[in-house]
Amino acid sequence: MTTSSSSDGFYAELTNAEGGALRYAVNGAWRASSSDATVESVNPSRANARANAFQACTRAEVDEAFAGARAAQGPWARTPLHERASLLHRAATLMRENAGGMVSALMIEVAKGAKESATEVERSADLIDYTAEEGVRILGRGDLLMSDSFPGNDRNKICMASNVPVGVVLCIPPFNYPVNLCVSKVAPALIAGNAVVVKPPTQGCTATLHMIHCFIKAGFPPGLIQAVTGRGGEIGDYLTTHPLVNAISFTGGETGIRVAQKAGMVALQTELGGKDACIVLPDADLELAAKSIVKGGFSYSGQRCTAVKIVAVFEEVADELIGKVNERIAKLSVGLPEDDATITAVVSKSSADFIQSLVVDAESKGATLCQEWKREDNLIWPLLIDNVTHDMKICWEEPFGPVLPVVRVKNENEALELVNKSRFGLQGCVFTRDIDRAIRLSDAMQTGTVQINGPPARGPDHFPFQGVKDSGIGSQGITNSIKVMTKVKSTVINLAKPSYTIA
Amino acid sequence: MTTSSSSDGFYAELTNAEGGALRYAVNGAWRASSSDATVESVNPSRANARANAFQACTRAEVDEAFAGARAAQGPWARTPLHERASLLHRAATLMRENAGGMVSALMIEVAKGAKESATEVERSADLIDYTAEEGVRILGRGDLLMSDSFPGNDRNKICMASNVPVGVVLCIPPFNYPVNLCVSKVAPALIAGNAVVVKPPTQGCTATLHMIHCFIKAGFPPGLIQAVTGRGGEIGDYLTTHPLVNAISFTGGETGIRVAQKAGMVALQTELGGKDACIVLPDADLELAAKSIVKGGFSYSGQRCTAVKIVAVFEEVADELIGKVNERIAKLSVGLPEDDATITAVVSKSSADFIQSLVVDAESKGATLCQEWKREDNLIWPLLIDNVTHDMKICWEEPFGPVLPVVRVKNENEALELVNKSRFGLQGCVFTRDIDRAIRLSDAMQTGTVQINGPPARGPDHFPFQGVKDSGIGSQGITNSIKVMTKVKSTVINLAKPSYTIA
Amino acid sequence: MTTSSSSDGFYAELTNAEGGALRYAVNGAWRASSSDATVESVNPSRANARANAFQACTRAEVDEAFAGARAAQGPWARTPLHERASLLHRAATLMRENAGGMVSALMIEVAKGAKESATEVERSADLIDYTAEEGVRILGRGDLLMSDSFPGNDRNKICMASNVPVGVVLCIPPFNYPVNLCVSKVAPALIAGNAVVVKPPTQGCTATLHMIHCFIKAGFPPGLIQAVTGRGGEIGDYLTTHPLVNAISFTGGETGIRVAQKAGMVALQTELGGKDACIVLPDADLELAAKSIVKGGFSYSGQRCTAVKIVAVFEEVADELIGKVNERIAKLSVGLPEDDATITAVVSKSSADFIQSLVVDAESKGATLCQEWKREDNLIWPLLIDNVTHDMKICWEEPFGPVLPVVRVKNENEALELVNKSRFGLQGCVFTRDIDRAIRLSDAMQTGTVQINGPPARGPDHFPFQGVKDSGIGSQGITNSIKVMTKVKSTVINLAKPSYTIA
Amino acid sequence: MTTSSSSDGFYAELTNAEGGALRYAVNGAWRASSSDATVESVNPSRANARANAFQACTRAEVDEAFAGARAAQGPWARTPLHERASLLHRAATLMRENAGGMVSALMIEVAKGAKESATEVERSADLIDYTAEEGVRILGRGDLLMSDSFPGNDRNKICMASNVPVGVVLCIPPFNYPVNLCVSKVAPALIAGNAVVVKPPTQGCTATLHMIHCFIKAGFPPGLIQAVTGRGGEIGDYLTTHPLVNAISFTGGETGIRVAQKAGMVALQTELGGKDACIVLPDADLELAAKSIVKGGFSYSGQRCTAVKIVAVFEEVADELIGKVNERIAKLSVGLPEDDATITAVVSKSSADFIQSLVVDAESKGATLCQEWKREDNLIWPLLIDNVTHDMKICWEEPFGPVLPVVRVKNENEALELVNKSRFGLQGCVFTRDIDRAIRLSDAMQTGTVQINGPPARGPDHFPFQGVKDSGIGSQGITNSIKVMTKVKSTVINLAKPSYTIA
Repeated sequence: MTTSSSSDGFYAELTNAEGGALRYAVNGAWRASSSDATVESVNPSRANARANAFQACTRAEVDEAFAGARAAQGPWARTPLHERASLLHRAATLMRENAGGMVSALMIEVAKGAKESATEVERSADLIDYTAEEGVRILGRGDLLMSDSFPGNDRNKICMASNVPVGVVLCIPPFNYPVNLCVSKVAPALIAGNAVVVKPPTQGCTATLHMIHCFIKAGFPPGLIQAVTGRGGEIGDYLTTHPLVNAISFTGGETGIRVAQKAGMVALQTELGGKDACIVLPDADLELAAKSIVKGGFSYSGQRCTAVKIVAVFEEVADELIGKVNERIAKLSVGLPEDDATITAVVSKSSADFIQSLVVDAESKGATLCQEWKREDNLIWPLLIDNVTHDMKICWEEPFGPVLPVVRVKNENEALELVNKSRFGLQGCVFTRDIDRAIRLSDAMQTGTVQINGPPARGPDHFPFQGVKDSGIGSQGITNSIKVMTKVKSTVINLAKPSYTIA
Repeated sequence: MTTSSSSDGFYAELTNAEGGALRYAVNGAWRASSSDATVESVNPSRANARANAFQACTRAEVDEAFAGARAAQGPWARTPLHERASLLHRAATLMRENAGGMVSALMIEVAKGAKESATEVERSADLIDYTAEEGVRILGRGDLLMSDSFPGNDRNKICMASNVPVGVVLCIPPFNYPVNLCVSKVAPALIAGNAVVVKPPTQGCTATLHMIHCFIKAGFPPGLIQAVTGRGGEIGDYLTTHPLVNAISFTGGETGIRVAQKAGMVALQTELGGKDACIVLPDADLELAAKSIVKGGFSYSGQRCTAVKIVAVFEEVADELIGKVNERIAKLSVGLPEDDATITAVVSKSSADFIQSLVVDAESKGATLCQEWKREDNLIWPLLIDNVTHDMKICWEEPFGPVLPVVRVKNENEALELVNKSRFGLQGCVFTRDIDRAIRLSDAMQTGTVQINGPPARGPDHFPFQGVKDSGIGSQGITNSIKVMTKVKSTVINLAKPSYTIA
Repeated sequence: MTTSSSSDGFYAELTNAEGGALRYAVNGAWRASSSDATVESVNPSRANARANAFQACTRAEVDEAFAGARAAQGPWARTPLHERASLLHRAATLMRENAGGMVSALMIEVAKGAKESATEVERSADLIDYTAEEGVRILGRGDLLMSDSFPGNDRNKICMASNVPVGVVLCIPPFNYPVNLCVSKVAPALIAGNAVVVKPPTQGCTATLHMIHCFIKAGFPPGLIQAVTGRGGEIGDYLTTHPLVNAISFTGGETGIRVAQKAGMVALQTELGGKDACIVLPDADLELAAKSIVKGGFSYSGQRCTAVKIVAVFEEVADELIGKVNERIAKLSVGLPEDDATITAVVSKSSADFIQSLVVDAESKGATLCQEWKREDNLIWPLLIDNVTHDMKICWEEPFGPVLPVVRVKNENEALELVNKSRFGLQGCVFTRDIDRAIRLSDAMQTGTVQINGPPARGPDHFPFQGVKDSGIGSQGITNSIKVMTKVKSTVINLAKPSYTIA
Repeated sequence: MTTSSSSDGFYAELTNAEGGALRYAVNGAWRASSSDATVESVNPSRANARANAFQACTRAEVDEAFAGARAAQGPWARTPLHERASLLHRAATLMRENAGGMVSALMIEVAKGAKESATEVERSADLIDYTAEEGVRILGRGDLLMSDSFPGNDRNKICMASNVPVGVVLCIPPFNYPVNLCVSKVAPALIAGNAVVVKPPTQGCTATLHMIHCFIKAGFPPGLIQAVTGRGGEIGDYLTTHPLVNAISFTGGETGIRVAQKAGMVALQTELGGKDACIVLPDADLELAAKSIVKGGFSYSGQRCTAVKIVAVFEEVADELIGKVNERIAKLSVGLPEDDATITAVVSKSSADFIQSLVVDAESKGATLCQEWKREDNLIWPLLIDNVTHDMKICWEEPFGPVLPVVRVKNENEALELVNKSRFGLQGCVFTRDIDRAIRLSDAMQTGTVQINGPPARGPDHFPFQGVKDSGIGSQGITNSIKVMTKVKSTVINLAKPSYTIA
């Protein structure tokens, strides 16, 4: 089955006349690989039936992509900022106008509900617009430093420092947000004067390629935006250690640690797993907490980096909270993405198997399943697991599915232990009305972000967003991503004699 | 009676051999006025007996002071930042080493308790040190702007913008912190490359002059720091409308509004009165609120801009709060500054009379005095007035004494009305544990600053500090004061051809 | 004669059915004044024949405008930033779509050439767009300060400081850019959450009112944008001293000094006259210098704040430079705005008379007229005056017409003297290839901006722009204008115990 | 031979009673390694005779050092900023008071001239002071972001973002500035709340250990500053891949690339080699250029990252420039560090051999030696090599000695080719009077910094300092180093209802 969208007019170039495997993008054109091999995506909602096929690019094609990117980058870095911004705005407009292709691809390949799929595209277009205007400002502004601040110096040196492009940015988005988490890398890279080479995930690849097509059609110079497809096992290391890479922006799982270890002297921005805890204190608004836990834990079947992945509730309110959570879970719709179900099939059979293994382990060690365990192929019914203890795998592992463990804690220290002993440190949240308690706990949590009285969230996209420990390195969010993808250049004017400015 | 300190070695130059009136500072020297006239300060704790006498400077002497300041400012603006900072550090050191003279002068002339007087000097020295290092940074750093951010422009214009001195800053501190609130004007002005002309208050004048002596002795160039004394009525307008004034930093009362109206096209920073409200919500930590109210309302007999000047307590906790406040009031020491009493004589007979009139008015309209009214000369015993209503003068006027009105309110709107109907808007505080309520109220209060769960406070001194409405204009705090005392200068390099920087 | 544009559809509401005087804008509607009186503009190109008539608003109507502005401002300050920005973008779009009315009004009332009139409108729309996005960023970002930076403090106070609207901003644009220099006040004021009251100049009034109509039609809440018309002599002081004014942004001439002197404790941004000097050094690119002098000195007949108003050329290259300038002057077109002449009639007979008096004075004292003096009504032919000396009025006065004095100087000091003795300090420019000389001179010039190798220029509009001395106070440019029109509000969270944040 | 300084009182703890190998620092104490093995430094000026011996630490001792650092870091991160700063100031004071030990060690182990050695220590103390005050400011200030900037959001989320310590920073300084380039890593790390593990270079180790002793004596908590010594070959990779490392700051040579490749997901700041070019244009001040070339190329025998490593001079001025350079070279003193010679022995025999091989290669390919080649042991006489061409190794390799190649170029493109084809990109310099040319060339040079009319320079130390390409990653300079050694932590307050702040 092929997504209908790729055969419609706007996206026609992505395939050959007979349909078949989607092409990869190089130097402004869509091409078939010389390998004659393809990789395939499946439809998680249809017993993992084949969805689409993509080129298995060769190393030579990867080399060509990088060489083309590097060649395009120079003139691009010499394009006025406001013109760069205009092209990004144009890409955003094209994405809004041609959203259909991406939305249906998201439903088919990553089983994302219809509304959320549409939201992903819309939010991505907003992100592009915001990034364009943000870049116009932070890249058009530098620091002016005078030498006489430092002991022993007159004012005879004037330093003009600004952020310049790093060169070529390798962008590796994950399957779960193949549009949004690609745009959040591509847009900052481009406005900053870089070229990009994108390696889409296999599941989600169609949507990523569609998105890239919107950029190409917007009129960016050929070569500036390349997309190479293929198996990570074959070209992954080749990409990340390529001598023409200057920065890597990676979102995904464990692979990211390997990427970091293999990478050389390049700028690195990684976002890997998370085990975001939700701490509920006795004075919390329990209705708000329950609502946030269900939204945070089960949206898109829990397949989000910033999903609530564990609940730490104080014993005295545990029963009441769990009751409220279960009431809401009972109302969650389970089914197909095209019916806009909240709970849809998880991305792969192996993912579903892994989730099941965590549930079995927990149950065998005495945890309480609040709902009946139910699974059909990749589709897993939402499940809250109460009375989870530290010896259970689900207490520390990330299920990436609609299964949420609850640990009952006696005090703040027990709650903090759960957060700080984890090898992850993406986000966390604290539900309490008490301002002192909220800040004290937030300050002590070893995570990139803490949400007070709200679920974990990546957005709004101009906020800084980052993981610590094994959750990643390098801050994201629009402004910070632009900064990661630039380096400092300074020009120092040495004056023959000191000069002091007045007015 | 003359302060002993002015006769000790370090401060000897301030008077002639026989003692007598303190001199004024011009071009690095201490001089007697040609007017042969003096103005006198009194000792508020000693039935307003004469304390010290100061020169009644003439207009010609004011002219000379300004001319000398202007002449000194040019070369000073061309002195390396780190050297300017070194001189400020030296002044701070001299203030710490010669604190005695200022401390005793504060006790005598403004009846400030011994410990608080010492704290004022110490905190002022810290402020100078911090200001020096802050200035080294914000003045040594400018903005670098590129033309290609704006539609239609290539990158052919590079703008280098930085903050340069305004020129001569007129500093007018108030009687209640004649050292600290003078230093907070003088130090930012100097590090920024300006000269200053100081007009000390009559009460507190001795301490201000001592402080200025520390600066002069530190080695600042002659003329850079001038101090002219005299009656505000005579030389006040002459000073504030002087053609050589470039900025005015004024702290005081109603006079400030007149200063603003009279001043021409100069930078203006004023801090006038306040009517800081303390809103106590039902869920507040009442012990903390009571402690903050007593500290905030009665320290230095309530003679602080940021004193708590009215309490708005929710009815349901009013009795309990008032009980706790009264317990603490009962323990306040009343007496002489040299005995380090918390409650000492207010600064003048007219001030004491005014305070009394507010109490009489309130009582006549039905307010409840929680303590017996007691006054001896300028010394007024601490008094909480309960059941204050909107028709009483004390509900809107600033007593500037140890008398604190309490209004019982039914809800947030009534509390906000009290704050927002006032013509003042300096600070306010909110006592509640609830984070949403705290922020909602803070956001709605028309004051420069809101303290959540703490009393109003000027410090720490690097925080922004400002009043709105009749409480003043222009933000203070170390960083903001430096900015007010500078203006922007930009140099634009027009390139023959566009040029884009890379690395 | 009425501008055709005001009778077309979009602008129909501005007049009554029969044409007649243009109305003023209050609370979202266009109204006739109860005064039954009008003020009239003339057509400078048509022997000052009547052009249009405007309402002579009464003081009560001014009061109503301010009251309505104040009432509208509260809810506007509580509108999400991105919504405020959207409305500004909408206004920019309407201005582009309905530019015709403004363009023809500019030609008729201020005799601005056709192309430059169109450019003014276009550039104004760009300015609005840029301001919207700039405001979204700088107003959505504040400072977070921690107490433990300052000696003696733990980390128990967290200060959140941001910029909030001042309230009502009085905008007074000048005749020469009645669209652009009104937009540059109104757009920053609005995005910052303020309401505005605009007082248009009489000449140029029609264009200003048209522009305001674009804002009103964009959907800003009624009352947020008011425009009152009338004689400055009658309602000028009433406006600038109105108790509901919180900030004044004024561009114009000497009146600005009076505005500053009359105004109370309000934020002030003024841009008054200038006497921008162009210093030409011996090593300069003389072709570039000549081109910049003619463009800078004669565009729009020299009626620009940032026009080149005096040339200081080194003797050794004076003849060559003057030769090149005269060649270019000879090619300037003189005539009617609708023919897009560069030199058109100056704004009024009194202006033309004043210019003539400066020429007569100079000639009588020995200056050399490089072209024949020629004037027809308000139309003055371009004139370079060589050998100007310090005793001539034109050496220090601002002609605001197509007449440019040249002083021959021997060295840098003589050039600097000319700049720094002036009572003005808007911009200046230096032509030299030598980087050291350029910076040394720029640093020493007492002007808000110095252009190196380019003519004085207000734009690009995101650059800071400011005058010093009698040229004004308060920096302009998009970012700085937003800052001037806001004040600081801080909220301090006092924690019960110190807390240090980690991750 | 042992440095006398290590036996004097202040540094006594570093050795045992009998002298012998210097100890390593762990948990506040100086200890001998359990390995019983040592590594030795030599005296480059004394035919590489043994200078000192240091502990060859074991992996277990490395583990202990990291564990101790980690344990000390937590409480340190919870110490008020101003207290952290006070300890740094104390360390600076101790360095100034005990400079002798470091100065003599620098002379003996790295053959640095007496005056320069003293300067290194003094400048390092200044750097510590500046870093302390800089950290107080940038770490005490965060960003406050509001949600309503982004489309679709109300103002119901308030983000408080600040920089928090990364944890443990591994500091690896090079032999040539073993004090200054260690302090430039340690001071930013400490003020930011981190612990440090220092791995000193073998040559220079004594001075580094002395410096660390000053920090320990200043009163930093035990464990916060660890120093482990040993062979890089044995413990190098173990250190850089240690699981407790959170950031690595490395200065040195090729090893840095390996460090980057081996390192995992840690913050990385490396400064490796450079091939800083000096471009001399025909209009340059040749006297200034010659002076800068000799100072930049031969100070400390050219053993500086920012030494001038190649001259690209325009043919038309080549002879004149080379003449001026040779005149100055003739005056350079050659000899012993204690005699304060400019040219002293290079650090090792292998370095001297390498330099010689470059000279031999160049001469064999037709280069012109401007001085006679002369070498005695490690001591190499200063040498300018003219007529260098692209095929010679010295055109691309870094001699790190007193040998400087000159390439004669025809135009800007040839000069740029030399800079941009290099695999290095640290600094470069351009000598020209022409502002356009200076900026055009600077913009086009692919280096971290370009000096206009001055030699390459690391300082002043508050300027940003960085290499690109193989010269490193991550910007240095005081402010940027603090930023590299921190990560972002954000706390988002989710309000139940939107709230807009006013004043």
